[in-house]
Amino acid sequence: MIELDFDKQGGLVPAIAQDHATGEVLMLAYMNRESFELTLRTGIAHYWSRSRNQLWKKGETSGNIQEVIEVRIDCDSDTVLLRIRQIGGAACHTGRRSCFYRVVENGGIREEEE
Amino acid sequence: MIELDFDKQGGLVPAIAQDHATGEVLMLAYMNRESFELTLRTGIAHYWSRSRNQLWKKGETSGNIQEVIEVRIDCDSDTVLLRIRQIGGAACHTGRRSCFYRVVENGGIREEEE
Repeated sequence: MIELDFDKQGGLVPAIAQDHATGEVLMLAYMNRESFELTLRTGIAHYWSRSRNQLWKKGETSGNIQEVIEVRIDCDSDTVLLRIRQIGGAACHTGRRSCFYRVVENGGIREEEE
Repeated sequence: MIELDFDKQGGLVPAIAQDHATGEVLMLAYMNRESFELTLRTGIAHYWSRSRNQLWKKGETSGNIQEVIEVRIDCDSDTVLLRIRQIGGAACHTGRRSCFYRVVENGGIREEEE
């Protein structure tokens, strides 16, 4: 039995999605217990959408689902790390590979080209 | 001016620390505005400790500070990605390199050897 600490954030834990092949960090989203268990059971990443307040199978509408290669949990059981294969090549809703395409530089932000 | 969305989580945003050389995800912690600005200004990772409820210069007591190589922000400005050099080789309070040393396997947890 795998017990996560869902109490610190009102039933949610942050989950980092990392490309299993390149190590690139693609996105961070949140999971409740149901989405965590669905992710383990199906091998497809499921999150909890805080904006829509509902279960979110990543890529359900876009087709850009995430196949889970490995699931890790941190030392105090309040964060999940998913090592995934990103179908469609884009984790970000902007169509970019990663959500972390903005680099802080010289007090401003530079958008990285892909 | 770099504006993060601190409102979603009561003044905090999650910050992922990733080894700049290997891509390994080392830990996740939280930042308030002060720790984010201190991190940018000093080039050393500062977080907000939720358990101690105070500013937390990572490694202040252990010496395992984090030199920041690059700071990234995600598409909706509510998550920070730090690409860092981990002094002392251990980000985790257990002495391990990464906090994510527990792998979910066959319905249980396997602790990864370093």
